[in-house]
Amino acid sequence: MAVSLAGGELIDIAREKGVNFYFEASVGGGIPVINLFNENVKPHRIDKVVGILNGTTNYILTKMADEGIEFADALKLAQQKGFAEPDPTFDITGRDSAYKTTILKDLLFNYKCGAEDIFCQGIDKITRADLAYAKSIGYQIKLVGYIQNYPSGLDIGVRPIFLPCGHPLAGVKNEYNAIYIEGSPIGEIMLYGRGAGAKPTTASLIADLLRLKRGEANMFNNAYEHSRLKKQSMPEDMKSQSNYFRFTVLDVPGVISKITAAFEKYNISISSMKQDISNSNEPVNVIFTTHESKCSKIPKMIEEIKKNKFIINEPVWFKIGI
Amino acid sequence: MAVSLAGGELIDIAREKGVNFYFEASVGGGIPVINLFNENVKPHRIDKVVGILNGTTNYILTKMADEGIEFADALKLAQQKGFAEPDPTFDITGRDSAYKTTILKDLLFNYKCGAEDIFCQGIDKITRADLAYAKSIGYQIKLVGYIQNYPSGLDIGVRPIFLPCGHPLAGVKNEYNAIYIEGSPIGEIMLYGRGAGAKPTTASLIADLLRLKRGEANMFNNAYEHSRLKKQSMPEDMKSQSNYFRFTVLDVPGVISKITAAFEKYNISISSMKQDISNSNEPVNVIFTTHESKCSKIPKMIEEIKKNKFIINEPVWFKIGI
Repeated sequence: MAVSLAGGELIDIAREKGVNFYFEASVGGGIPVINLFNENVKPHRIDKVVGILNGTTNYILTKMADEGIEFADALKLAQQKGFAEPDPTFDITGRDSAYKTTILKDLLFNYKCGAEDIFCQGIDKITRADLAYAKSIGYQIKLVGYIQNYPSGLDIGVRPIFLPCGHPLAGVKNEYNAIYIEGSPIGEIMLYGRGAGAKPTTASLIADLLRLKRGEANMFNNAYEHSRLKKQSMPEDMKSQSNYFRFTVLDVPGVISKITAAFEKYNISISSMKQDISNSNEPVNVIFTTHESKCSKIPKMIEEIKKNKFIINEPVWFKIGI
Repeated sequence: MAVSLAGGELIDIAREKGVNFYFEASVGGGIPVINLFNENVKPHRIDKVVGILNGTTNYILTKMADEGIEFADALKLAQQKGFAEPDPTFDITGRDSAYKTTILKDLLFNYKCGAEDIFCQGIDKITRADLAYAKSIGYQIKLVGYIQNYPSGLDIGVRPIFLPCGHPLAGVKNEYNAIYIEGSPIGEIMLYGRGAGAKPTTASLIADLLRLKRGEANMFNNAYEHSRLKKQSMPEDMKSQSNYFRFTVLDVPGVISKITAAFEKYNISISSMKQDISNSNEPVNVIFTTHESKCSKIPKMIEEIKKNKFIINEPVWFKIGI
């Protein structure tokens, strides 16, 4: 966490003084992601970095998806396996991933922000119904840290996303981590491995020590660092995306028309709708997916829909695609 | 190919002279696998390296598996896409993968052998029936180059294998390459990306040039090279594995008993058997999977089974698992 809190400054100091600063184990445990970034990625134009950076949450989501169990049971399993702490807040709220995303950002982009400043959505609201629906339309839900480099600025954050099953990150299961990068001319690459544990961490420390021993030239002195040009944050009102919405509602007349009216009012174009069959007075899930639409309107729309008495839980929404 | 033919010697000369020798683009195109091996993998005990090292054959196998088409049609598609040469022999026989496997071997192990010396089985005998059967029991067929480091010696070669669908290499599709490594303490890591093309190759060349420019200390001077201890080849009669066999036969009485008698005689324990339903006089596929058994007896057993008049095609067999 120290590297995340002060990593940007430490890198800048190392750069100025012409010395090296090694911190391989700080992201992705045994995966040599820092070395990859310094050696092979930084000279390129980077368009996208997407990482499954937290093994605990990935284990929980895998168990929920593959075994059809609910969040609380999957969390218990993760605690039994020793992947999750007795207090799992730091992992499941996405904060741990946010710290790691910030380190990756410091390495590649000259944009000042801390882990607390970036968008961060956790996994505790995800139900097995969400995962089952995702699977039925060809997606896996994964918690990712992302940095997207748009002409209008950087979009950076942590969120659960619907990843198409064909995406290499979608196959990353259990406690494994992976970092996926798109750029030019480097193309698409992904690095996969164990994100935590004594042995993988040792492996990363050994790699750092060997670099020190070899007395390598300053790794921060890289002539082709396009990415170190000063970056802006992408303006909120320029962000648009496809989304998945789940409303848990009482099965009374008028639900669909009231919700769809709100979507229309906020100009969010519905792509599909699915309503569970109701068993007498049991609450049902109503699921919507949308075409790409402006994100900035979503919180207001949700607030408006929540005013309806038939809404019995906090509505959830997740981004589709990356 | 030059790096493969003389890479071992060139590495040894570089090591002696205390100079560097860069060849990132020689394996895995834009995937920084050589750098990964030199920087993060070599200090460890390496147990296993398994690579999808040829984009053309991976594209063909993906099309066959996902679209249920035969080898010849998938090859045509690969040629239309520009992935396969008009004469695709070098790719589909596995020779290209053998050259790349040899380069990886030279980097990690002190064992002298050329690409022509290692076991090499291509993909031209694979049918959509094989891929469909594999899928039905939870496997994908992939052409891999492998180096396995056993106490009795190295097992190195190129072959199509049945990979469990949960294995990270099983999800590597189309023209993508990936290299999977198991060792200690490094654990399991995988690197994924484009294996060929102008842009990925440029990316690797840039990485090499930047290393040169930084005047990095000799990358071959690595104090923790356990793996450079002189290695032996694993004796043939110690190799054992599970296998998939397909016999294409005339549907006459006695087929199953004659084949199973041969399996018994050579002490190869059958794990499952499946016979297609025959349509009158059409030939049918009879498929066997076996428990782990000695490999050295397989060619003799196949020769004996082939003597039966009901065998109408060359039998095929592929390794299950890695």
